[in-house]
Amino acid sequence: MARPAGRDGIVHGGDLGAARRFFPGAPEPWLDLSTGINPHSYPLPAIPPECWTRLPDEGERRRLEAQAARAYGARPQAHCVAAPGTQALIQLLPRLRPRGRVAVLGPTYGEHVTVWQAAGHDVRVTANVEDLAASDVAVIVNPNNPDGRTLASADILALARRMHHWDGLVIVDEAFADVMPEVSCVGLLDSGTPILVLRSFGKIYGLAGIRLGFALTADETLAGRIRQELGPWAVPGPTLAVGIAALGDRVWIDAMRHRLSSDAARLDVLLAGPELTVVGGTPLFRLVETSRAAALFEHLGARGIYVRRFDDAPRRLRFGLPGSEAAWARLATALAQFPQRRAAQRP
Amino acid sequence: MARPAGRDGIVHGGDLGAARRFFPGAPEPWLDLSTGINPHSYPLPAIPPECWTRLPDEGERRRLEAQAARAYGARPQAHCVAAPGTQALIQLLPRLRPRGRVAVLGPTYGEHVTVWQAAGHDVRVTANVEDLAASDVAVIVNPNNPDGRTLASADILALARRMHHWDGLVIVDEAFADVMPEVSCVGLLDSGTPILVLRSFGKIYGLAGIRLGFALTADETLAGRIRQELGPWAVPGPTLAVGIAALGDRVWIDAMRHRLSSDAARLDVLLAGPELTVVGGTPLFRLVETSRAAALFEHLGARGIYVRRFDDAPRRLRFGLPGSEAAWARLATALAQFPQRRAAQRP
Repeated sequence: MARPAGRDGIVHGGDLGAARRFFPGAPEPWLDLSTGINPHSYPLPAIPPECWTRLPDEGERRRLEAQAARAYGARPQAHCVAAPGTQALIQLLPRLRPRGRVAVLGPTYGEHVTVWQAAGHDVRVTANVEDLAASDVAVIVNPNNPDGRTLASADILALARRMHHWDGLVIVDEAFADVMPEVSCVGLLDSGTPILVLRSFGKIYGLAGIRLGFALTADETLAGRIRQELGPWAVPGPTLAVGIAALGDRVWIDAMRHRLSSDAARLDVLLAGPELTVVGGTPLFRLVETSRAAALFEHLGARGIYVRRFDDAPRRLRFGLPGSEAAWARLATALAQFPQRRAAQRP
Repeated sequence: MARPAGRDGIVHGGDLGAARRFFPGAPEPWLDLSTGINPHSYPLPAIPPECWTRLPDEGERRRLEAQAARAYGARPQAHCVAAPGTQALIQLLPRLRPRGRVAVLGPTYGEHVTVWQAAGHDVRVTANVEDLAASDVAVIVNPNNPDGRTLASADILALARRMHHWDGLVIVDEAFADVMPEVSCVGLLDSGTPILVLRSFGKIYGLAGIRLGFALTADETLAGRIRQELGPWAVPGPTLAVGIAALGDRVWIDAMRHRLSSDAARLDVLLAGPELTVVGGTPLFRLVETSRAAALFEHLGARGIYVRRFDDAPRRLRFGLPGSEAAWARLATALAQFPQRRAAQRP
């Protein structure tokens, strides 16, 4: 299962080792805007010593799953399975289905295509929602990464109803739905349709290092198979403790949603300065499309600011949110120094 | 993949939820001696904030793997792959081999049989080393859990040489080899034979909650496939930080080996009091065989002391090490209160 790395070897954001190789002379510390991870992380709670020393506790795992189900708005009959990161769930799903036709609504987060292909499924990336219904498994990242495209719950429900006839499965990766909760289809899990929702903890809580994600489904058998693939003690003890505290804190997340929306609007204003066009995103990241993407990537990189470029979309750059006034100022200065188009090039 | 639970539902040690269900009136806190986890845990180092907030760093992962390879005595040509717990490695190995004959030297840790069977392999448990060579994959837990049986490196090497002829694989699970380093066959990895060694971090360092284990092999392709099955960011950031600190600390582990050997000898003396026979073990746990195992399990459980019983070996009980003088005293008192055999029963 080779992950396709582009000519620069960039497969994911967040790898400052790669940034340092590209820009060996850049000033430290790096300002990493290459991910969609919230820079305002949830304050770490006190972690009881036994979370480190003992095997992860089954009771705590169940408590975390109940907390997550509530936080995500699932009805009591939905099953919620905690995993050590959404990536761990993405990796195991292809093993739960017989080989078949898999349609991924894309372009999107690359790992979905990679893992289904590696498991021998017939994978097609399509930008057309209609094409999804012609598959055994449909994968939708909603809101989408990196362009923020959203699909309405009604459309996902209609798709799931059709696919139900031939034992299909609709996988909805809601990695960024915490900042756009109106998009989530967790509320559809009691519809009697084959929907599996993936939720990520690390992005919105700004704690990507602890590895925590969830699968939610009304299908008890599917939930059981996911749990067995994960095996015992899959989620570390400290992760259980942090997850239970954070997912139970409604005040924090409500305030954070407002803060991130306001930060995203501030970033749009900043990006408008050098005449960049924001073509999409979510409150956790903004996607810019420009013919000068390569030059801007180099310009920022030389100044120690790392943004996400895409080998398969060279006109695009994705910007995460700066996390401090110093970081905002550094980005503002760098963008102001980016050479304007020459007048001759203008229409 | 159903895990076979016995009539009491005990599959693993360490589940105090189960202990509380069996003995609802037992005094709290429980003294948990049901695992082989070192009660003297490695002191947690300071964990940099970015280990929590950022995606786990590739460079730190490589640093941890190099540290582990050195600590385990691997030659530079061996490949070392870090995983979120040895269990995660045990779960993925059956997927890396075509379906075939798997021989497990047993009785032993139950998960090996469970996962190979679930993946459709033809699994046989044998107590005879000779039988291992008639298989495609041989699994050896060395030293063995729970009886401490050890297999000499020379015997493992001879087995691996034979199995090499038909593309076989010898998996050596060295979960408890840290306390008996002379048993380890990591030094055989440059022998040109198909040996895969599994090492566990949590038991010897007393940090089972963080989930960390390693696969070591001279086979670059096998190491690469394990890495790809694990996927990106498999080991959490805080785990990387703790692992790097602990595996680099030679002073601590040398002192700990002495301490645990001395603790194990002390436990043997204590167990001899009620005329129990220690039939095996490692410095991290002792195995007792007695016709009064069920009664002793009940006796200790009623006093809030949880030991490991085995549904498939009802005469056996496994004792982990008490971690404090108070714990030693509590165990000593409980054992002293255990009724002696009546004189009439003696020969």
